[in-house]
Amino acid sequence: MTFFQSRWVSPPQNVIEAEDRLLPKGFRATGVAAGVKDDGGLDLALLVCDGPAVSSAARFSRSGALSAPVLVTRQQSDLRALRAVVVNSGNANAATGERGMLDAAAMRTAAAQVTGLVPEQVAVASTGVIGVPLPIKAVTAGIAVAGDRLRTDGGVLFAEAIRTTDAFPKQVTLDIELSAGTVRLSVEAKGAGMISPSFATLLVFVQTDAELDAAEVDLLLSVCVKRSFDRITVDGQLSTSDTIICQASGASGIRIEAQSADERVFGEALDAALRQISMLVAKDGEGARRIGRVLVRGGDQRVTERVAHAVADSPLVKTALYGADPNWGRVIQAAGAALPDMAPLDVRIAIEGVEVCAHGSYVEHDAAMLAAAVQRDEVEYEITLPGQGAETERFFSDLGHEYVTINAEYTT
Amino acid sequence: MTFFQSRWVSPPQNVIEAEDRLLPKGFRATGVAAGVKDDGGLDLALLVCDGPAVSSAARFSRSGALSAPVLVTRQQSDLRALRAVVVNSGNANAATGERGMLDAAAMRTAAAQVTGLVPEQVAVASTGVIGVPLPIKAVTAGIAVAGDRLRTDGGVLFAEAIRTTDAFPKQVTLDIELSAGTVRLSVEAKGAGMISPSFATLLVFVQTDAELDAAEVDLLLSVCVKRSFDRITVDGQLSTSDTIICQASGASGIRIEAQSADERVFGEALDAALRQISMLVAKDGEGARRIGRVLVRGGDQRVTERVAHAVADSPLVKTALYGADPNWGRVIQAAGAALPDMAPLDVRIAIEGVEVCAHGSYVEHDAAMLAAAVQRDEVEYEITLPGQGAETERFFSDLGHEYVTINAEYTT
Repeated sequence: MTFFQSRWVSPPQNVIEAEDRLLPKGFRATGVAAGVKDDGGLDLALLVCDGPAVSSAARFSRSGALSAPVLVTRQQSDLRALRAVVVNSGNANAATGERGMLDAAAMRTAAAQVTGLVPEQVAVASTGVIGVPLPIKAVTAGIAVAGDRLRTDGGVLFAEAIRTTDAFPKQVTLDIELSAGTVRLSVEAKGAGMISPSFATLLVFVQTDAELDAAEVDLLLSVCVKRSFDRITVDGQLSTSDTIICQASGASGIRIEAQSADERVFGEALDAALRQISMLVAKDGEGARRIGRVLVRGGDQRVTERVAHAVADSPLVKTALYGADPNWGRVIQAAGAALPDMAPLDVRIAIEGVEVCAHGSYVEHDAAMLAAAVQRDEVEYEITLPGQGAETERFFSDLGHEYVTINAEYTT
Repeated sequence: MTFFQSRWVSPPQNVIEAEDRLLPKGFRATGVAAGVKDDGGLDLALLVCDGPAVSSAARFSRSGALSAPVLVTRQQSDLRALRAVVVNSGNANAATGERGMLDAAAMRTAAAQVTGLVPEQVAVASTGVIGVPLPIKAVTAGIAVAGDRLRTDGGVLFAEAIRTTDAFPKQVTLDIELSAGTVRLSVEAKGAGMISPSFATLLVFVQTDAELDAAEVDLLLSVCVKRSFDRITVDGQLSTSDTIICQASGASGIRIEAQSADERVFGEALDAALRQISMLVAKDGEGARRIGRVLVRGGDQRVTERVAHAVADSPLVKTALYGADPNWGRVIQAAGAALPDMAPLDVRIAIEGVEVCAHGSYVEHDAAMLAAAVQRDEVEYEITLPGQGAETERFFSDLGHEYVTINAEYTT
């Protein structure tokens, strides 16, 4: 299995990576070039569930400046029974006012028409530049083309068409062995910037051919998102557009009952898949060389969260990670900044298992060994605060020249 | 007058920039190379007040991981009557435990000895690498040398010796015409990274030969810091070591009474000087090309503060500023992130006076004019939220390749 690469993700039991890349039964998808992107790349993605029944769940950004497609989907679609998803990349349709709302609704209607659905069964998402009107004619024309090209192996095209600054597409297809047979799970995601832990942080689409009640889809998604996309940060920037949608077609004929052993197996597979995808997003973090994990333990959950957040979003920690510099002084600086007026701080810090600080003070250590350890693709920082019982983690990308290049030159 | 360069600082009345660079009467200072910095540069600064009386005030970082010199000065010195200041650069003496406390106390004692004071009259500060023991023998030897070299024109050397990654020293000498005569004000500051609005954000030393009660020094410093160093951010990173000290020697024989017209004139000069110095710090922001000002108006002070903070610390906004990209979508994204669950957002955004967004939606504007405007050294972003009566501002540096280079390669 090549998908589960991160040491921070335990490969789940009863799961194999599918080689055929076919979507779970009951789903078809595609990606086409509609002309939203100037470079002629794929920019319009469509996915539809033809299964006997469908149950779904969705999560969105909590930004105060939500994009029009998020508002339209959240307010006007039936989030428990979404059959189709239509997405454009290259333009976020955010900060576009009334026209943006009309455009998002028109996208939704066009997708409903080509798939034979009603608009309430369709979710719409857009990603890309903010504050520029959507070229809606190109988008709807692209939807018409996409409607004719839906394929059971279209997940890869779909994943390709939702990319913006992503260096690589994020897609996986897994087969999960349950007591009653095998179900399939596929995930297509995009996200490389404007990523911050606030549960919904990018575009993620999950499909399975298992049969699940909508309440169970919602519960599973909720738990797994908290342990994956909620814990990654590229640049601490909550997006206007983040959307996660999970659909179950039931087309495998295999039903997963609430609180069953099969649900636990399925949940573990979903958890591992979303955690690994979230690592890929952090790793793709607009030019990131390596990713860090900060693990914070202590006696107060809110304090551990604050410290984890401060370290993971510290540009000083992130540039040190980029430079493979074991500069733990920046880790204690970031932790201290998150804990105002709490000096002196009784904190322990270890990097890659090497203790560098105890009781707030440096510890003699093997600098050469540490310097070698932080050259790896994944670097772990452990922070221990006084007390016990609370623990959290954050995954973060480094901050390097490529981030600056991408973001100093991206658009308008 | 060349010092007051920023359009965001009004040059104060009754003030001229002194050409002789002499410290205010009653002060002597110097900077020497003690060998803390590997490159042999100036790294030990000493300043002493020989005036008939002295009154002082101090502000410190609120970090939970305070450096030893901050703890020693705050806990063991008489902050209302500080006569001497001793500073080393190249090593922050932070996260250095009990040994760090002893070293900071030894620095303070050594400075007291060479200046004929008691340790309680001395403030100590250190800036540089965190988590490495201070080479205390080199530092105390440097203090002995510095004690023999104190000069009335030593402010420039002092400012040079407190630098770390600063691209240029920050120093100014002003003469202020009061009703009873002229007093002098000088400021020496350092700071280019780990700068964040939390009142004390760097090392700043202010001297005047006016006579002021300590309570007035404290009040003036408090008001002026709120309008200067509290409002700048380079990278949102609160330091372990930030210290601001203001001393009045009274050696001019000119007394400034509380709530007098002279106090207002003096306060305006101090305000302008600290604001301009804070702009220089933001501008020096570890390789910054230009600085931004975000001005937020609305009905709720806390909300305006949150939005200003989010925009000023957004790496997406900062990279766009670096790239001279008028990408206001990132401004609304950052504002939205600061206002969770408040969508749709009724926000107006103008950049350099060009309205780009009204009622949360784009406004047609002259893109060429805007593109030219954001090429300037200073770029202004105005954000207007619903309501009235609240207003705040933040100054921020851009985020560019030089920041990454400096911080990926700085130490250990």
